[in-house]
Amino acid sequence: MSVQPLGVALVGYGYWGPNLLRNYMELPEAEVKWVCDVRAEALKTAQSRYASVPVSTAYDQVLADPAVDAVLVATPISTHHAIAKAALEAGKHVFVEKPMTADAAQARELVELAAARGLTLMVGHTFVFSPPVRKVKELIEAGALGEIYFITTQRVNLGLHQKDVSVVWDLAPHDLSVLYYWLGEHACAVSVYGRGCITPDVPDVAFINLKFPSGVVAEIQASWLSPVKLRRTIVVGSKKMLVYDDTENVEKVKIYDHGVDFQEPSDYGEFQLSYRTGDIVAPKISGAEPLYLEAQHFVHSIVDRQPPLTGGEQGLQVVISLEAAEASLRAGGVEMPIAVPPCTA
Amino acid sequence: MSVQPLGVALVGYGYWGPNLLRNYMELPEAEVKWVCDVRAEALKTAQSRYASVPVSTAYDQVLADPAVDAVLVATPISTHHAIAKAALEAGKHVFVEKPMTADAAQARELVELAAARGLTLMVGHTFVFSPPVRKVKELIEAGALGEIYFITTQRVNLGLHQKDVSVVWDLAPHDLSVLYYWLGEHACAVSVYGRGCITPDVPDVAFINLKFPSGVVAEIQASWLSPVKLRRTIVVGSKKMLVYDDTENVEKVKIYDHGVDFQEPSDYGEFQLSYRTGDIVAPKISGAEPLYLEAQHFVHSIVDRQPPLTGGEQGLQVVISLEAAEASLRAGGVEMPIAVPPCTA
Amino acid sequence: MSVQPLGVALVGYGYWGPNLLRNYMELPEAEVKWVCDVRAEALKTAQSRYASVPVSTAYDQVLADPAVDAVLVATPISTHHAIAKAALEAGKHVFVEKPMTADAAQARELVELAAARGLTLMVGHTFVFSPPVRKVKELIEAGALGEIYFITTQRVNLGLHQKDVSVVWDLAPHDLSVLYYWLGEHACAVSVYGRGCITPDVPDVAFINLKFPSGVVAEIQASWLSPVKLRRTIVVGSKKMLVYDDTENVEKVKIYDHGVDFQEPSDYGEFQLSYRTGDIVAPKISGAEPLYLEAQHFVHSIVDRQPPLTGGEQGLQVVISLEAAEASLRAGGVEMPIAVPPCTA
Amino acid sequence: MSVQPLGVALVGYGYWGPNLLRNYMELPEAEVKWVCDVRAEALKTAQSRYASVPVSTAYDQVLADPAVDAVLVATPISTHHAIAKAALEAGKHVFVEKPMTADAAQARELVELAAARGLTLMVGHTFVFSPPVRKVKELIEAGALGEIYFITTQRVNLGLHQKDVSVVWDLAPHDLSVLYYWLGEHACAVSVYGRGCITPDVPDVAFINLKFPSGVVAEIQASWLSPVKLRRTIVVGSKKMLVYDDTENVEKVKIYDHGVDFQEPSDYGEFQLSYRTGDIVAPKISGAEPLYLEAQHFVHSIVDRQPPLTGGEQGLQVVISLEAAEASLRAGGVEMPIAVPPCTA
Repeated sequence: MSVQPLGVALVGYGYWGPNLLRNYMELPEAEVKWVCDVRAEALKTAQSRYASVPVSTAYDQVLADPAVDAVLVATPISTHHAIAKAALEAGKHVFVEKPMTADAAQARELVELAAARGLTLMVGHTFVFSPPVRKVKELIEAGALGEIYFITTQRVNLGLHQKDVSVVWDLAPHDLSVLYYWLGEHACAVSVYGRGCITPDVPDVAFINLKFPSGVVAEIQASWLSPVKLRRTIVVGSKKMLVYDDTENVEKVKIYDHGVDFQEPSDYGEFQLSYRTGDIVAPKISGAEPLYLEAQHFVHSIVDRQPPLTGGEQGLQVVISLEAAEASLRAGGVEMPIAVPPCTA
Repeated sequence: MSVQPLGVALVGYGYWGPNLLRNYMELPEAEVKWVCDVRAEALKTAQSRYASVPVSTAYDQVLADPAVDAVLVATPISTHHAIAKAALEAGKHVFVEKPMTADAAQARELVELAAARGLTLMVGHTFVFSPPVRKVKELIEAGALGEIYFITTQRVNLGLHQKDVSVVWDLAPHDLSVLYYWLGEHACAVSVYGRGCITPDVPDVAFINLKFPSGVVAEIQASWLSPVKLRRTIVVGSKKMLVYDDTENVEKVKIYDHGVDFQEPSDYGEFQLSYRTGDIVAPKISGAEPLYLEAQHFVHSIVDRQPPLTGGEQGLQVVISLEAAEASLRAGGVEMPIAVPPCTA
Repeated sequence: MSVQPLGVALVGYGYWGPNLLRNYMELPEAEVKWVCDVRAEALKTAQSRYASVPVSTAYDQVLADPAVDAVLVATPISTHHAIAKAALEAGKHVFVEKPMTADAAQARELVELAAARGLTLMVGHTFVFSPPVRKVKELIEAGALGEIYFITTQRVNLGLHQKDVSVVWDLAPHDLSVLYYWLGEHACAVSVYGRGCITPDVPDVAFINLKFPSGVVAEIQASWLSPVKLRRTIVVGSKKMLVYDDTENVEKVKIYDHGVDFQEPSDYGEFQLSYRTGDIVAPKISGAEPLYLEAQHFVHSIVDRQPPLTGGEQGLQVVISLEAAEASLRAGGVEMPIAVPPCTA
Repeated sequence: MSVQPLGVALVGYGYWGPNLLRNYMELPEAEVKWVCDVRAEALKTAQSRYASVPVSTAYDQVLADPAVDAVLVATPISTHHAIAKAALEAGKHVFVEKPMTADAAQARELVELAAARGLTLMVGHTFVFSPPVRKVKELIEAGALGEIYFITTQRVNLGLHQKDVSVVWDLAPHDLSVLYYWLGEHACAVSVYGRGCITPDVPDVAFINLKFPSGVVAEIQASWLSPVKLRRTIVVGSKKMLVYDDTENVEKVKIYDHGVDFQEPSDYGEFQLSYRTGDIVAPKISGAEPLYLEAQHFVHSIVDRQPPLTGGEQGLQVVISLEAAEASLRAGGVEMPIAVPPCTA
């Protein structure tokens, strides 16, 4: 680590910004130089909590400050591109909330710009930094689950309808970023069934069916209209299976030493299967806050000049997937291919 | 009820037959005249439990017995059609296990034959007789849930792979029959994503996406490869929502007085939503055994000359849906229309 | 094993007898020679299920049959002593349901009689044969939990009030037999708080506080008046802790690699504690039926001339403990000592 | 409300003080005039969060400030009496954390002093202000549960051993204050079994058996040595029963329309019982923070000159009960009477 803490500026102090501010205030490796928002009253709220932090409604002023090494973008999605682009052009590293941009072209432009300038560009796919998600990644990497067969995930609850984006754009970025991180590959096709129950133009329930090049199939159920809050993911592999339930306080990940053993067809050409059920283990999971780990990772990526785990390419791939998913949903479920990002970077 | 109990013959004493036998033995309105199976050793097992019941390996002998009013078919699916057809032609009422037949043409033939002969034909979609499923039907009928928006259901566990049919044909008949019973309409299109993880030719995980004429969307997750057993259905309506969890011992149905209230767009053209969360009620559910209620219903349908709730038409509709679902799955998820049964009956 | 199966006679075909009959009918090492009950209609029920089994209302006739090696007593508690005594005097081995007798003097007499005659006397403390209880015993024996500190157990539900015995005599035999089996020692004192809520003379809720010679303390909550059914036992040891929940379908035993580490007092005389929370493991538990294992154990104890795990002495100790507990409850909670059985045997 | 907000000073900024400060900072009816602690570094922490709040290590200075209307005491228990007494003598209203004092004599003195000066004295039995506890109180008051038969409560988890007080003094104040609030009466006798597992002088598990004048019996299980965190209370009444589980996120209170119906003895002198199981309702519970409601109540009690729900008398009664419980525990479980507080007030 450098001796000098990294100077950061937070742009956008609405719903999510305060969470970023709280974590960066506690991070020894960073120093918050500015909180910036076009709404003066939001800045007042920020100052009531952190009296010492300078605030500004003028983004230009922030970008002009040489003490600012990096900009954190937590504004509405439609503004991500412009704000991030200005920051990159001003030579600042950029952390931008998910989804990265409102469309793939915007995301691609940012990826290319960051690459051209040699700047770090990271997207806030926070779940990738969550200890239970990390634990599952470790297990997959170590081969503990064997070959992955399929994954299902539910992210449903009652509320908060968005006015301008569907439940796909709102909730699926979490699951897509996690699936891509775990599997180390991107979905190649998607079919989405859903409906706008409350306002027909804004789908609020979606069944997102995904195919991966390796043969893995996955399904994401996303809804703002479920009576119960579910955050449950089932990963089935050839050796073991696991359940990751983020609503559990203690046993967030449970590993089932269960499986199906396949015997070669006998003389009569019939296959024989036997089922194996063994112990169930809930490994100890660190209680560290994902946002703090994410903030740390951003700073370290810059200082160590290492590509972040959730860099611009990863953010772009999620946006490309969301576009395909949304198109499928709007077309009544017709399967859409998901392109590999043709970045020059 | 008639004074004379209905004479029934059970054909097929394998995995499921013993359950039918036990229930019909306890039913005062019926008298078991024969247990029939081509395997002599299966008949020995039956007699070790019910010494008094006549057994036979000769189906002809059973059909020739004038004391037999009705035949219960619990043989492998591929034989349903021939056995049921012979019974109908012999003038017997028929109860046949689900799925009704191996294809729609066979099912249609049985429906038409029963209609022509004025005989009762019923299919063993047992869940329709399950008290929690009945309770949900009552709530929907009474309008307690309001307009139904969507339904998701999970029927997953570890085991039992079938050798000749996919997980769709094995597990989805339960959910399809329940959904059609609740909604009073049939799905008009289906798209199925899935995979044969253990044996590529036999899909063992399937995500079944359904569209209904009313606009309802539904999804059935079916798998033989889940580490945990899930039997959970979520029904979301405009007034209330409910969760039906068949693995719960006590609170099988929970009704959530939750919802979203929609205010008309204000002057600024923005809609306003507010969320309502109220009490949660788990109504008392009868502990009666669904199979017993099903057996009773079959006898009463015959005696009262009333069409059964799960008659041949309902069975046929499920088979038509399964054919479409299987075709979609085999075609990689391409949406297939589900035809309305063009019966002459 | 002997070539010849053991001849057994079941006395008492009421609430519990059918369970014994079913298991002994399936046990190859035994042959049921008689089902005996003073109520002729009970015998009819038995025969409707097992047509081949001889029945009798005359206990004398049963005892006179030399083909009867052992008698299974499943009659009301008040008759246990007389029926078991007659059997022992007739030279038969005896299995008697729990609690063994209505008082300690009766139990002591049976123990002494069996010892004098060289006959096997076993008490139906079925939970000792339950796979999860066995698993906990293994863990304790292997030292996996370390020194046992304390145990709490809840056995509460709604129903079934007994007319003649308190909830202590009805429910506590289960927990007492399990605790004594696990700990390898008997409680030396008991204090019971409780109340007869529905009928003042018949306590239906009891908090049973137990002290053991080793220093272990335990508490049994027993009630017929709980809205929820709880069967949960917590065992806390110096190395690990566990929860045994018999209402769980799958994870009946969970082992917590949790503990408290004690550091020696520092210079300032203050002790330092640190808490350790590690993985949680739900070991695979056999699904074997406890009653079947119990029946097997009875036969093997006779054939191998080995004292059964739940022999007369164990049954007597439970009865002595129940007497002390009941006395404490009737005396408003005054602590009562629990004597060591002064058997001559 | 008065126009002028109430001036409060917080004394003690350790483990609990920050929670009080946060809530009083947000309460419009109060204004925090001072944060006082003898440890200068604690005051630095307070100022880093609330830069505008004056701090002091000199309690004299705080008491001398006429802008201070009330003092909030969140210091170690052993100092409660002296600090509260000085405040009352300086004419300040006092809020003191639970347990109120280290012994009953101290608590009695404070009650009398507050009465003599006409000042408000309130104890921080926060659970009395918790919405689920309030809901249960409403149900009891409205007669919905009928006559209360018994109550059991579990407050167990792993950690945090106290160095100077037993688990009884640490955890039981919560349950005692709640039970007394619900029942509107105090326990008249207590018997406590327990053990110091980690350090023999400091009991860390306790089974607290309570008798009430009305006949209600209750049991509090308290432990710092449980592998799982349990916060479950069962209340059984003659009409309905309920479970209050504070670890549940949503269904914190469940009301069971279950019960036992008693029929008068028939001619044969036998009573007949029938069990009733009906719906289960989880009423909507406000998500308001108990500490905020408690703070509001303190201010309103002062302004409206009304005795607080958890006033000095209530705090004294809890301390008297804790003394009796601790004495019973130390005496090996001997039942101790609990005196009615002989206050002159």
